[in-house]
Amino acid sequence: MDEILEGFERRDQTALARAISLVENQRDGFERVLAHAYARLGKDGARRIGITGPPGAGKSTLTERLIQQFRGGGVRVGVIAVDPTSPFTGGALLGDRIRMESTGPDPDVFIRSMATRGSHGGLATTTEEVADLLEAFGFERILIETVGVGQAELDIAASADTTVLVLVPESGDAIQTLKAGVMEAADVYVINKSDRPGADKLRHEVAVMLGMRHRSPDSWEPAVLETVATTGEGIGELGAALERHYAYLQGSGRLAAGRRNRLQRRLRAVVERAVRQWVWDATRAEELVAERLDDVAAGRESPYDVAAEILQQLKSGAPG
Amino acid sequence: MDEILEGFERRDQTALARAISLVENQRDGFERVLAHAYARLGKDGARRIGITGPPGAGKSTLTERLIQQFRGGGVRVGVIAVDPTSPFTGGALLGDRIRMESTGPDPDVFIRSMATRGSHGGLATTTEEVADLLEAFGFERILIETVGVGQAELDIAASADTTVLVLVPESGDAIQTLKAGVMEAADVYVINKSDRPGADKLRHEVAVMLGMRHRSPDSWEPAVLETVATTGEGIGELGAALERHYAYLQGSGRLAAGRRNRLQRRLRAVVERAVRQWVWDATRAEELVAERLDDVAAGRESPYDVAAEILQQLKSGAPG
Repeated sequence: MDEILEGFERRDQTALARAISLVENQRDGFERVLAHAYARLGKDGARRIGITGPPGAGKSTLTERLIQQFRGGGVRVGVIAVDPTSPFTGGALLGDRIRMESTGPDPDVFIRSMATRGSHGGLATTTEEVADLLEAFGFERILIETVGVGQAELDIAASADTTVLVLVPESGDAIQTLKAGVMEAADVYVINKSDRPGADKLRHEVAVMLGMRHRSPDSWEPAVLETVATTGEGIGELGAALERHYAYLQGSGRLAAGRRNRLQRRLRAVVERAVRQWVWDATRAEELVAERLDDVAAGRESPYDVAAEILQQLKSGAPG
Repeated sequence: MDEILEGFERRDQTALARAISLVENQRDGFERVLAHAYARLGKDGARRIGITGPPGAGKSTLTERLIQQFRGGGVRVGVIAVDPTSPFTGGALLGDRIRMESTGPDPDVFIRSMATRGSHGGLATTTEEVADLLEAFGFERILIETVGVGQAELDIAASADTTVLVLVPESGDAIQTLKAGVMEAADVYVINKSDRPGADKLRHEVAVMLGMRHRSPDSWEPAVLETVATTGEGIGELGAALERHYAYLQGSGRLAAGRRNRLQRRLRAVVERAVRQWVWDATRAEELVAERLDDVAAGRESPYDVAAEILQQLKSGAPG
């Protein structure tokens, strides 16, 4: 543990990777590492950018282009790919390949894939915590790539300061979902693969859909851009839109307000996780659930009877 | 409360609606109502069928056709529409209209829309609980309609005995998601609006995708069907596939095994919810979070310090 923290201070990427694994698997001491990282946040104007969209929209290529652009400006970039379909998903090996190809071996780029299974609904919190580690380590832009246009996927991307939604002319279902108002708004809409038929139509549809939303006069007007990530077309404009949105957030006070809101939500999530771990790992709850499952399955008692009993034991300070 | 339980016994739909609201909003006494319902489950061979798919796939029309078919056989049908885009979503009024149009005013059909927001990730559990109420009330088929092809949406549909995924020839993103392995398998795949171009191609793609999955020899071979819900074409085949799957579940022992697995997951979820409610409503946790948010936002302490302190107080049995 001390070794990890020490390596972290030396900006050793191996220590960073180990710290991330510790947090991802919530192994002993993960909260200590996170508290350590937390104390180092918010000092260098680091920004978090969420990138989401349906599979096949070209998010990874777009991310790679953004990395190049940021690196061209001397900015350190960390990437979290919460995306089982991402070409990054192969882990370090593919991550290395991409770095080699596009920017050369570069100590100021770090790409990490995260598993999406078995996270018990805590994936948004874990992603924020891994982003903390990257920011504390010294990365100035944290890109968080998720896949899907459902509420859960967007919640993760929306833990960033700026959310980018990537669509392609074929994104029929995504557009249906947007129209249906299932999704919260993104800040920047990218029509990628815009050299394909239907791009202008899609751009128009997105603009109409955004036009129908109620917005207060001082709120951000979402940017709608066209890109061809494979050739790099439109990436400059995307970078500029990200800058504009960040300037808007700062100027309007919404950067601090948004971060505080997210922090409040997260503080509650961290408390709930700690309580959950205590209940299942250090009390008799797990044992009771196992003992009583047969009775519950047979209808002899209800889940609510069992829950009430466990709660009673917790309240009475029953020994673990 | 007693009035609700009494009305429930009399099979009064107003009492059922009130019981559902109580559970949905987790108001005082909701667990008592659920324990009451729980004791009445599993007696009449009731089955739960989850129906999911992207918006615009025609799930509601398909559901309406299934209702007609079940009613034709004298079977009582309850519907839960967890779908902000569903035409059912207008609530009782639209539900009534649909019943009037398609089956006449029928006391053995009940349609209920559920809100998807503000559910704190507990939507799958609440949906199962509302299904309990419907089953305990005497409905023999419970249809659970959700929208989306993300993991969260499918988790809800998968709390049923049989999961139906509805696609349309335009479902490009949905197919991408399926190919990417983001989703767990459904039991029955329906290509709806199959009179449109591309239906056969989609059916072929789904079949290829299913063929690539590893399956043990005794596992269910997913059915792939074409329907035109607006005309009723293929609904008979869908009904037959649902019967076949149920017979498979019974014959293979997977009906009981699946229900027991789901029950175990749910028992844990119910315990966690009870603990969460206790922590936030009956201890000083909420107050502490509010008091310390400024310090956490300023980086003077970490979320983990606050969580540790709250946990310490819970463990020591601090008074609420």
